This record gives sequence, structure tokens and C-alpha cells, in this order.
Amino acid sequence: MRQSQLFTHSLKELPKDETSFNAQTLMRAGFIDKSSAGVYTYLPLGLRVIQKIQTIVRQEMASLGAQEVLMPSLTTEEPWKQTGRLTSFDVLFKTIGADKKSYVLAPTHEELVTPLVKKFVQSYRDLPLGVYQIQTKFRNELRAKSGLLRGREFLMKDLYSFHLDQDDLNAYYLQAQKAYFQIFKRCGLLDQTYLTFASGGAFCQYSHEFQAVTEAGEDIIHICEDCNLAINKEIISEQSVCPNCGRKDLLERKAIEIGNIFKLGVRFSKAFDFMVTGSDGAKQPVLMGCYGLGITRLMGAIVEVNHDNQGLIWPKEIAPFKAHLIDLTTGDSGHNQAEKLYDLLVRLGMEVLLDDRRHLPAGTKFADADLIGCPYRLVISDKTLSQKSFEIKRRQDTAGRLVAIDQVSAYFGSN
Amino acid sequence: MRQSQLFTHSLKELPKDETSFNAQTLMRAGFIDKSSAGVYTYLPLGLRVIQKIQTIVRQEMASLGAQEVLMPSLTTEEPWKQTGRLTSFDVLFKTIGADKKSYVLAPTHEELVTPLVKKFVQSYRDLPLGVYQIQTKFRNELRAKSGLLRGREFLMKDLYSFHLDQDDLNAYYLQAQKAYFQIFKRCGLLDQTYLTFASGGAFCQYSHEFQAVTEAGEDIIHICEDCNLAINKEIISEQSVCPNCGRKDLLERKAIEIGNIFKLGVRFSKAFDFMVTGSDGAKQPVLMGCYGLGITRLMGAIVEVNHDNQGLIWPKEIAPFKAHLIDLTTGDSGHNQAEKLYDLLVRLGMEVLLDDRRHLPAGTKFADADLIGCPYRLVISDKTLSQKSFEIKRRQDTAGRLVAIDQVSAYFGSN
Repeated sequence: MRQSQLFTHSLKELPKDETSFNAQTLMRAGFIDKSSAGVYTYLPLGLRVIQKIQTIVRQEMASLGAQEVLMPSLTTEEPWKQTGRLTSFDVLFKTIGADKKSYVLAPTHEELVTPLVKKFVQSYRDLPLGVYQIQTKFRNELRAKSGLLRGREFLMKDLYSFHLDQDDLNAYYLQAQKAYFQIFKRCGLLDQTYLTFASGGAFCQYSHEFQAVTEAGEDIIHICEDCNLAINKEIISEQSVCPNCGRKDLLERKAIEIGNIFKLGVRFSKAFDFMVTGSDGAKQPVLMGCYGLGITRLMGAIVEVNHDNQGLIWPKEIAPFKAHLIDLTTGDSGHNQAEKLYDLLVRLGMEVLLDDRRHLPAGTKFADADLIGCPYRLVISDKTLSQKSFEIKRRQDTAGRLVAIDQVSAYFGSN
Repeated sequence: MRQSQLFTHSLKELPKDETSFNAQTLMRAGFIDKSSAGVYTYLPLGLRVIQKIQTIVRQEMASLGAQEVLMPSLTTEEPWKQTGRLTSFDVLFKTIGADKKSYVLAPTHEELVTPLVKKFVQSYRDLPLGVYQIQTKFRNELRAKSGLLRGREFLMKDLYSFHLDQDDLNAYYLQAQKAYFQIFKRCGLLDQTYLTFASGGAFCQYSHEFQAVTEAGEDIIHICEDCNLAINKEIISEQSVCPNCGRKDLLERKAIEIGNIFKLGVRFSKAFDFMVTGSDGAKQPVLMGCYGLGITRLMGAIVEVNHDNQGLIWPKEIAPFKAHLIDLTTGDSGHNQAEKLYDLLVRLGMEVLLDDRRHLPAGTKFADADLIGCPYRLVISDKTLSQKSFEIKRRQDTAGRLVAIDQVSAYFGSN
């Protein structure tokens, strides 16, 4: 894409009404725009990142054998009454329809997915089953000051699993953990992310969170460095040693919760009388698990973890573009060479942002490239052209190196 | 995909609480589930169709040079007050935040996109510009009885264009019409769809609708067969002859509006004081166009237009699977051959639904294949295997023909 065509641009000043680092930086770099507290618009650069995260999540959900659906946000009150959460869930947005009925904007979908799956699943032969969606959630948070980390409207992947017995739920739960780590690995957060024992709420003794360590975290976790496990501070009084090895000297760190999974047991299947016939012919309630992952929150967490003073540093798989090609040439012949290089890279299947804004000084272009944070910065200038080359520099490196233009296919073919 | 793995299945009885043909049939075939009036869940088969329509729409928007964003649903009241539509727009869902402020669930996004683009666009050099999104819309309709044709929650593509002068808006408006016809062509609705003069509401003399002719339509249009143009009955008193050739004997038909485009002029740029500097240095208000297309409504319209008594008939580009492969073999050797054929087709890049449900009679499988409506039905049975073949039949044909299994690459390579 040509940067001259992009309707957004980076901002010179920090947005005044935003205090979180992730949202400030994403706004400054032209990835998002703030609509109101906890509500953002995803601009072309930001939406590209979101779509790449979605692709990764869909691939890993497919590897789990989960099936994608799309449930609505607008739900009647009845299922929420049936589970008792119409009153106990404290962040429900509510609205009144033209039919005078009350509706809830769903902040999670157990109340919808359980009756939905019940319509189709009758027998143990239909289990286990995983059903997920990537969908907009609404939560009526009183405070929404953490940018993309705590939104009033946000994108979430929510997976629900259905099982005949506890062993099957336990096995699936472990598989789901692996899929989650695969997602975080591809999003560049593997090294920072700890499987964390947390409160199971009304559902089970413990839930598990995926916590990415960063100073910007709202949560505090206690890490066992031997086992790569952690305990959320909220349960440290009941679980003060590593649940795996019993180690007592744990490392206290701030972290962002980027995923949360629960064994729901029969909490929702009982509420909706969702029974299946077992292999012995007897009816029994279905066991459920739920597996949340905030898509937009993950983007915020990646920003908190991967950045420097100059701006964003995107992991390769989710960068809006793999390379940012900066044209610093001064004459028509140079511009033609830059365009040729751009076309060549695009034909090689590379996603490239071409900075073709000829009226801007080189310093502004370099600052923009650092702020936007594509993995590779390519520079073509009269000077590099005198050596029939362009310069390539990884975002996190300080120095680049020259690559001959006629070697570009070989160079990127093997990278 | 293996049909035995699909958690949904077709329903034997017509859903009782649904009166529209499109939603009834999509529910019966296991594409959607009804959540409440005008609110549906998209099941795996239905979501595949939606995602294919989205892909087509994105490609045609890209060909227009439009840039994709994602704006929120939850909006403050302020911009709606600024345009006067907080009171004049009659289908707004409203809600109250934990901060005691009132919010609107956006049914359209002029109130968001105009201030958003204003932040980035200052000069005539930044124009023309097209910005679009594919996003969930909420409309508080009193009656929602037409299935996917009139939802309370639905997916829409909304494009907004920005121009320096009327000539530029006019030229873009024509380009957008072409892109729309390209979308409808790829969705199998080209022959039925007429560019239709309609009321311009508060914005302009006429808007243009894209109306797909079908008996299920809620609208009535008057068609000029010479020009392939139509006039919506709502304006026939002011425009009673073909606007192109003046022909008077027009054909009255029922139709479904599958797209609607408006020249908004300065209606919204004035409300938000969105001015740009022209080439003469003077400030002038931006001209805008808006271009709506209901993604889920389009799916409903396709169902109304393309079906027979047995079920759905999907156009190739948006079918959930290109082929439905039915395994009617009875022994292990036959099942192995069916699996091999399935693997081969998948390796050829074909999307195939394999009916591997061994406990079901052939008649049920054939009925399901007709109901689901994939473009090709492939049957492999002991009988076809005795001729080292499988049978292929197009959904709309009555008879199939045999294709040798060892010719499958050649056959589908050229199809």
C-alpha cells in the first residue's frame, strides 16, 4: 500500500484524553481512534493487525477441531434470568426494544451457546464438541482507563466446549491450553506469558489465566521459575506455593491477563436442562468448559510488551505490513526505481507499505517508520542506488545493511 | 469437512415461530438459528456463506480504492444531537452507561465517520477518499418478520466517500454502482437486480437502490426493460417514466432492496463543520456519498431468489462448500475409496462437505444435499465403484453423469 493513499497519519502530539500507554501509542501511530471511554475505532493499520490476530486464532481453533459460529449481541432477558446472572453480572448493558421488551447486550455467551448446542446435541456420540466465535462484546465498565486492555466494546474470541465426563473435559482443557500458547507464540508473547492459577469464581476451584508480564499490567502474579507457572495474587492466600513443584520463593510481577479459561462443569447445562444420553442409555448433564481471549486486548498487550521509545515493534505474523519501504530518492529516475522495487516485493508476496510522500523530510519518514513499527525498514535513496542497492534494517536493530536490488528475490525468497 | 463432525443438522419440521421463507429454509437446512425476532445466530454453514460474501465485498471495495476501518456500535449521544437525528431517527436502540451517560447503538455511521475523517483530512489533496467497514448494526424495528431481510441486529457493509466537488462525487457514485453490480454478479443476483431510482430522503432528490426481483420482495418497482433501470413505487408519482429513455410502459414487480446509495452532499460535513482547503486556498465543505449493503440481508435475498422445492441453490462463489460428496458405499473398502476421493478433492483445493454419516439411509442424505444446496453433488457407491467412477450432478440438474476416479484431477482442474 502507498502511504500517500492512507487517509490516516501519525499524530505529532499525545492524545490528551487518553492515559494508557497502549491506546496513546496506537492513536499516535494512526492505528486506532478513541470514540469514547473504552470504545475505539480501528483504523486501516490497526484493523490489519486485528485481522491477522483473527486469522491466527481461527487457525488454532481449527487445529482444536472447534467450529465457528456467530451469535448475536442483542439477547432477551430470559436466559439471563434462567442462570441468575441478570442480577449477578454487574456489567450488563441493557436496552428496551420497540416491542417494550428488555434486552441485554451480551458480555459473554454461555446463556446463548448452551441452549443453542442443546438443540442439536442429544447423545454422547455428538461429544466432545467445541464451538467458538469472534464477536463484539459489550461490558458496562464504570472505569475504562486502560485503553484496549479494558473496553466497554471489544472483540473477543469465546470458545465453549461440551463433554460427557470430567476426564474428557480435562483432556480438552489441556489441548486448549496448548492452542492458546500457540496463539501467543505467533503473536510474539510466548516468553512473557505464564499459565496462571486464578479464582474459579462460581464455577470451579481454580480457573486458568494467561498472564503476559509487563509493568503496565493491572494484575499481580507470583511466578514459579522452575515450572513456568504462576499464581494470581487474588488466590495467593489459599495457594501460596507452586501447584506443580511446591516451590515457595515465587517471583512477584505485574501482568496483563490475555486469556482466561474455566471448567464450568454443569453450571450452565443444569440451568438449561441440557442432558445427553450416555453410552449406558442414561441421561446425564453435559459438562462444559469456556475459553476466552480478548482479540483487541491482545493487541493492547502486544503493544505494552513490544515497544521502545521510538514506537511500536510488531511481531512478524501480526504486523500491519512486513516491510516499510521508504523512498528518499530525489529525481524521477530514483522514484521509478523505488516503484519498481515496491512492485517486485509485492509480486514476491510481501506486504509492503511504501512511503511515497515526496514532500516530507527523511527524518519525519524515519520517525514514522519507527512509530508504526513494521518488522523491516527498507530505504532506497540516491546514495543506495549509486551502489544499485537498498538498505534493510530490522525494527529493533540500530544499523542496517545494503542489499543489491538484483538480489531481492533471492534475499526475500529465503527469509 | 466431515458432516459427521458438524454439530448442526437439518431440521425435519419447519420452525414454528418463523414466517419468512428465507429464515425458515436457512433454519431448516442448519445455516442459522433464531435467537429472537430479527436476531439470528449464524451456524457453521451459514457463517461460511457470510464470510464468502464478506470476501467478495472486500475485494470489490479494494477495487474502488476504499480503505477498511471498524467503527464501534456504542456511541455517545452528542454526534446524534449535532445532526438532529437523535430524535428524527426512529429505530435507535439506546442504553445507559455505568457513567450515567446515554449511549446509542449505531444503526448507521455518518455520525461517526464524518468527525473521524475530519481529524485526518484537511486539503483537497487528500480527496477523493472512500472509507468502509463491515460491522454489526442495530435497528430497533417494531416489526421484524422478514427473516434476514429486516433484522434488529445485522451485518452491513457501509462505505462513505468524501469529495471536493459535485463532479468528483458523481464520478465516484458511478464507480460505486459498478462495484455493486460486480458484487451482485458474483453473488448470483445480476440478472434479477435493477438499479432503481428511489427517494433521496433529506439528502438529495433521488437515491439509488439495488432491487432484486422476487415475489418475496417487500418493495414494488417499475422496470424499464429497454434500459434495465427501475423506479421505486414510492416515487412513481413524481417520476413516472424511465429516467433514461422516457419509456412509459413499465413492468411492475416485487423486489428486495439489497443495496442503497445516496449522495449526501454537505448534510453531514456542515453538521460537523468539516471543511477542506481547495486548490484556490479557500475553505469549502466536503461533499459526501454513502453506500450501504446488508451482508446478512444479501444472504436472505439470495435464498429468496435461488431455491426450489427441495431447498437452497447456492451460487458457486458463496456456497458453503463447492461440492457435497455422499458416501453410499457399504463396506470398508468402499469407505476407504470415498475417503481417498475426499482427500484428493481437498488436495485439489476444493471445498468439500463429505457425508460420512453411515447410519443414515441414502434418501435422507440426498434430501440433505438438496436442502443444503452445494453447487455439485458427488455420489460414490458400490455401483459407481464397480465402474471405478463417481457420479456428479449439478444442484439444479435432474440427472448426473459418471466421472472416472482417475480422471478427477483433469476434470476439476479444468472446471
